[in-house]
Amino acid sequence: MSDDRVLLAHGGGGRLTKQLIEQVFLPALSNPALASLDDAALLKLEPGGWAFTTDTYVVSPLFFPGGDIGKLAVCGTINDLAVKGARPLWLSLGVVLEEGLLLADLRRVAESIGSLAKAEGVAIVTGDTKVVERGRCDGLYLNTAGIGRLATPLPLGPASIRPGDAVLVSGHLGDHGVAVLGRRTGISFSPEVSSDCAPLWGLVDAVLGTGGRIHAMRDLTRGGLAGALCDFAQSSGLGIRISEGKLPIRKAVRGACDLLGLDPLNVANEGNLVIFCPPGDTAGVLKAMKSHPYGASAAVIGEVCEEPGKTVLLVSNIGGERIVDMPVGEDLPRIC
Amino acid sequence: MSDDRVLLAHGGGGRLTKQLIEQVFLPALSNPALASLDDAALLKLEPGGWAFTTDTYVVSPLFFPGGDIGKLAVCGTINDLAVKGARPLWLSLGVVLEEGLLLADLRRVAESIGSLAKAEGVAIVTGDTKVVERGRCDGLYLNTAGIGRLATPLPLGPASIRPGDAVLVSGHLGDHGVAVLGRRTGISFSPEVSSDCAPLWGLVDAVLGTGGRIHAMRDLTRGGLAGALCDFAQSSGLGIRISEGKLPIRKAVRGACDLLGLDPLNVANEGNLVIFCPPGDTAGVLKAMKSHPYGASAAVIGEVCEEPGKTVLLVSNIGGERIVDMPVGEDLPRIC
Repeated sequence: MSDDRVLLAHGGGGRLTKQLIEQVFLPALSNPALASLDDAALLKLEPGGWAFTTDTYVVSPLFFPGGDIGKLAVCGTINDLAVKGARPLWLSLGVVLEEGLLLADLRRVAESIGSLAKAEGVAIVTGDTKVVERGRCDGLYLNTAGIGRLATPLPLGPASIRPGDAVLVSGHLGDHGVAVLGRRTGISFSPEVSSDCAPLWGLVDAVLGTGGRIHAMRDLTRGGLAGALCDFAQSSGLGIRISEGKLPIRKAVRGACDLLGLDPLNVANEGNLVIFCPPGDTAGVLKAMKSHPYGASAAVIGEVCEEPGKTVLLVSNIGGERIVDMPVGEDLPRIC
Repeated sequence: MSDDRVLLAHGGGGRLTKQLIEQVFLPALSNPALASLDDAALLKLEPGGWAFTTDTYVVSPLFFPGGDIGKLAVCGTINDLAVKGARPLWLSLGVVLEEGLLLADLRRVAESIGSLAKAEGVAIVTGDTKVVERGRCDGLYLNTAGIGRLATPLPLGPASIRPGDAVLVSGHLGDHGVAVLGRRTGISFSPEVSSDCAPLWGLVDAVLGTGGRIHAMRDLTRGGLAGALCDFAQSSGLGIRISEGKLPIRKAVRGACDLLGLDPLNVANEGNLVIFCPPGDTAGVLKAMKSHPYGASAAVIGEVCEEPGKTVLLVSNIGGERIVDMPVGEDLPRIC
């Protein structure tokens, strides 16, 4: 490429756009569907249930301990499909580039996307690149939309949870948010906190394979555990009671949250999910989670209750209860 | 809503994000699949061929004569599916908002998206909203990915075009680009030039309904007619010869291009497509195009030839020939 930075002309739809796609994206993402570089990818779909999702990624900084915006974009969309019980198959990729971005950084992100997609058996089948002037973006933003094949006959979601259901999480809370904030603010933690950013279809597949009746799943991203549980309580009309002592939180994350004035319940993960299942199936589900690399720290953290409806309660270590509120949202901008 | 502008907290994944979605997007886009606000939309798909596409929109300004970024995002993705012979059914919507954007502008864009989607029978089934700080975006950027059902048994694309094929366009060249540049630069043209931004599935459906053998279609966006034809010539290895005198170009657009130093062949449309079909089918296809509101100015502009391969030639009004180059891409940033 003639220059080492992104130019406005790379977004003009002409020769330079073609060059950028052929030299940066195709080598990293190569697959037959994408290679045609046509207006749309053609897919052969079997009859049945499918899931379709989208997410845009604006994380700052682009690279952080444990991941980068590309890994995040692939994991985030895989996880949104996985928690609906759908096997991720195809992803689209929309890229907004800021004029002046180092092509080396773009290549690094493209390779991160390509290698993870390959490892997870998903194909980036269609894409688009735009370029905006300096100061109209922050390096690069990504959008991934994804299509997955439903692997469970039951609809998963808030409407399916029942009083008595166990509430499980697959990993430590808040790692991603703390890792990103640490890098952004220049504060280092000891030991270093890495993002938990990970693709969770394998874990979900193992859980579904137990035959346990899964009622709902959600990956914990913006809003953290509090955001996800408050949303489930609101949507289902039921209460959720979680125990402070059972929450898996790293000491370094707890310390960082104290320092930054954050509640770890509100801090984002990117490779962690919450599962609701009937009490009789909990042991099998927990065992399957713990046997998977991304679920080694899985734990039962609480249960669904009839009352108080639409409310999440945290039972403290000394037996007190406090209401967990839906975060307002201003603490953690651009975490994903 | 408590304020009349977008706040960073609207992107935090908490209460304000929920409020933004419930108060701005849901009323405008309402449909049952979206209403669940879950991680992914569930779709029932019939067996067969499907098309999947994505585009990000960063047009500046957000509102221009004949359209806005929302209309553009819906049309662009509908058109990418349509030119593959696929009936657009479902769209995802990814939104990046700049802190400080007027909520009234966001509402206007959401309503534009919603009303066009409704009119075209496509549903926005899943979405995502992010907010970035002032100076990290330009009002708002949109991404739409789309899924459509193939309505033609033949694969459409550069590999299917043949020497002798007629080349048709459905409308005037360059209207969109000139309308956007006019608004951006503050130059007004007389008569005013409006964007041709339009959803083309209806036109394509009518063309396919003729039973004519369509070999390939492409909507003319970034890079204009020159970009599309050069790409077809390169990909197919064939030549394309077009006649200057047959190109439908408005007088005002020609004048504006002279003024701005642009070649109308390179200027974007957003509601115009090029069709390749065998000479025997041209009359029927042209008639179907002309009978449709978005094809009233359709014209046969040239043909595919064996030699010179990989080359687009423009035959001038006095019989001279010049090579049409793939635009470099620096003339027209942020046109879509």
